[in-house]
Parts: sequence; C-alpha cells; structure tokens
Amino acid sequence: MEQAADIDVLRALDSVLRDRRDASGDSSYVASLYEKGLNKILEKVGEEATEVIIAAKDCAGEKGQDALLGEVADLWFHTMVLLAQQGLSSSDVVAVLEERFGLSGHVEKASRS
Amino acid sequence: MEQAADIDVLRALDSVLRDRRDASGDSSYVASLYEKGLNKILEKVGEEATEVIIAAKDCAGEKGQDALLGEVADLWFHTMVLLAQQGLSSSDVVAVLEERFGLSGHVEKASRS
Amino acid sequence: MEQAADIDVLRALDSVLRDRRDASGDSSYVASLYEKGLNKILEKVGEEATEVIIAAKDCAGEKGQDALLGEVADLWFHTMVLLAQQGLSSSDVVAVLEERFGLSGHVEKASRS
Amino acid sequence: MEQAADIDVLRALDSVLRDRRDASGDSSYVASLYEKGLNKILEKVGEEATEVIIAAKDCAGEKGQDALLGEVADLWFHTMVLLAQQGLSSSDVVAVLEERFGLSGHVEKASRS
Repeated sequence: MEQAADIDVLRALDSVLRDRRDASGDSSYVASLYEKGLNKILEKVGEEATEVIIAAKDCAGEKGQDALLGEVADLWFHTMVLLAQQGLSSSDVVAVLEERFGLSGHVEKASRS
Repeated sequence: MEQAADIDVLRALDSVLRDRRDASGDSSYVASLYEKGLNKILEKVGEEATEVIIAAKDCAGEKGQDALLGEVADLWFHTMVLLAQQGLSSSDVVAVLEERFGLSGHVEKASRS
Repeated sequence: MEQAADIDVLRALDSVLRDRRDASGDSSYVASLYEKGLNKILEKVGEEATEVIIAAKDCAGEKGQDALLGEVADLWFHTMVLLAQQGLSSSDVVAVLEERFGLSGHVEKASRS
Repeated sequence: MEQAADIDVLRALDSVLRDRRDASGDSSYVASLYEKGLNKILEKVGEEATEVIIAAKDCAGEKGQDALLGEVADLWFHTMVLLAQQGLSSSDVVAVLEERFGLSGHVEKASRS
C-alpha cells in the first residue's frame, strides 16, 4: 500500500501540527512557533524559501540533491505549520492544485498504475 | 478511497510536470519555465513565498483564507516544478518529512481512521 | 566634491519618489507602484531580494559583479519606494545605521580623508 | 555640514566592513558572517527582506515606523556585507542608481537646497 502511505504522511503531519497547536505545556519546536505567533512562522517561511533557492543553486550530485530535498521539506513543513495556525491543512492546498490543474483524469490514471 | 486521492494529486502533478519538461514544442506556462531555466524557476519560488507572507498577513475571513490557500498552492506548485527540473518529485519530499518527524506510527493511525 | 555627491543621489532619489507619489496623472513605473499599493511594493521587495541572492550565487567576473550591483540597486530602489510610501526616507535609514554602528568617529575620519 | 554626513555614514560603514573582512581573529558579528561565507550572508539578506515585508504590513504609528526603519537598516546593512565580501561597496550601488534614474540634475538641485 505504498500509494496510500504518501497522502497519509501529509495528513498525519497535519494531525500532529494540530495536536501541538492545541496542547498546553508542549515544549516542542512546533509549539514554540505557535506561541511566538504568526510573524515568527512567516519569518521561517521566508528563511526556508531563501534556503531552497541557495540549495538549488548549489545542487550538484546526490549530496546536493539531498540538501535541496531537505530544504524543500523544511519549506513545506513551515507552510503546513502556517496552515494549521490558520485552521487550514495540506488537504486544502492539494484540493486547490487538483482543481487548478484539472488533475482528476491524471489522478485516476495514476491510481490505476 | 478519498484517503488515497490527495497524494495521487501530487503524484499526478509530478507526472504532468515531468511530461511537460520532456515535451518539445510545448507552449504551456510550465514549459516556458523549463525553457527559461533554473534562475527563472527560483525567482518564482521567491515571489510566491513573498505572496504567501503577504496573504497570511491579510488573512481574515473566508476570502482571506482562500487567497492564502491559493498562494500556498502556487508556492508548492513552483517547488514541484523545481523538483522536476532537478529529476526529483514530491514523493521524495514526503519521504523526508516522514522520516524526519517519525510519522510512521501516526501514519498507521491515520490510515485506520 | 565627489564625497558629497553619493548621498545627494539618495536624497535626490527620495525627492523624485516623493514627487511621483504626490503627482496625479503620472504614468511612470513608480506612480504605478504607488497606485497598486503596499502589497505590490512589498512583492517587488521580495522579488528583488530573490534576484540579489541568485545574482550573488552567479557572481563571477566583471559581468557577474555588474549584474549583482544592478540587483542590489533594484532592491534598494524598491525599499526607497516603500519608505516614501510610508512617509519615510533613505536619510532615516542612514541615521539608524549611524547610531547602531556607532559610526560617528569613523564618519569624521572618512570626511577628513 | 549635515549634507556631507549622510554619505560619509555609508562610506564609513563600507570601510568598517572591509576592515572586519580583512582582520584576522576578529570575533565580531560581521567577522562571523564573513567566516561562514556567502551562503550565510545570503540567508541573512533573505531573512531581512522577509522582516521588512512583515514590518511594513504591521506598520502603524510611530512605533511601527521605527520597526520598519530598523528592518530596512538591517536589510541594507546585510547587502553591504555582501557587497564588501564581493569587493564592491555602497558607492557602486549609488552610482548605478544615479545613472539609471538620470539623477545628476536632481542631485545638483538637492545640494543647492
């Protein structure tokens, strides 16, 4: 069931982010972001976008690709923290992408393969 | 199978991006990004990150949330164009997130619910 | 008086920006930025910062340095548009730098040399 | 001679940045940026641009304006660190602005006023 696993990862992460947002006395990194508030979360989004750009310019060989993947993961992660803070989730973003790119036909094809 | 659908959207989009990258004579927006090259793609990543930050500061009410979702979708989309250009995909990013956040337990729970 | 000229350039630019902000029926690029408002100006600041980063990563040889200078000039210019829109100026920024870095001694030395 | 002072501030700061770049055993913040290298300096440029955008969205009242000035000063400062690292200076940027905006006439007018 590798197919099902990927989406569950993003959903599981949404769920973890919501739990940490609502927990009191949580000392995790995510909890500290929520406590510092929107501006701190947005600073991180800006920082991580910058790091994606730098990593992409340095991207050469497998090690460079790992670094780039790490930075894109950081960027997606912090946008998911932002979404959770605003009562939204990765599924909402995926729904926009699906509608915008008329992907329903493609999705069917992908799930058959 | 709504559960499986979301990630299929990302996979379908990866697949569309790869096709457009490899097609010749494609006049789509994505094809024009690939033709202009890495710097143009990175400029878009920077622009979209800025627009996420501005939309988040303006986020109030349902309309504000829709605008924010649209900007996050744009940002994710352009990072996926970047990934495809580098021979990578959204699944690689999801794998990093899964490993980094030790989500396997959470994922199992999410797929049962 | 080459020494005095540089800052006069910044002051002259501040003055041009204020004039265009206050003129009606001005069809210049600057006037169009003011008309589109704060978010458009901030999008430009974000774009130009991204272009500085990319140009710096590409910086090699004289041509690379010219490109970097052009992008830094664009970034400073758009921050000056932002300052003018907010009723501020480059002199206010220079005053902050002077105070923050305790430059008065250095400045005296520089003006004697 | 307030007129002459402003430019001297930027030149004095250029000079301080060059000195710290070339000093050995300097434990200052600027020296640590040079030691960490180009990517670290570019990360700071990206961070400070993000903070300018956030501060501008929060800009209301005198306190908001002070915060915005502080962030623009940070952004200009880190671009000056970048310029010094590349063997360039704020005067080079000012020269580009002067040429680009045909400011020589305006500058004359400003220095008479």
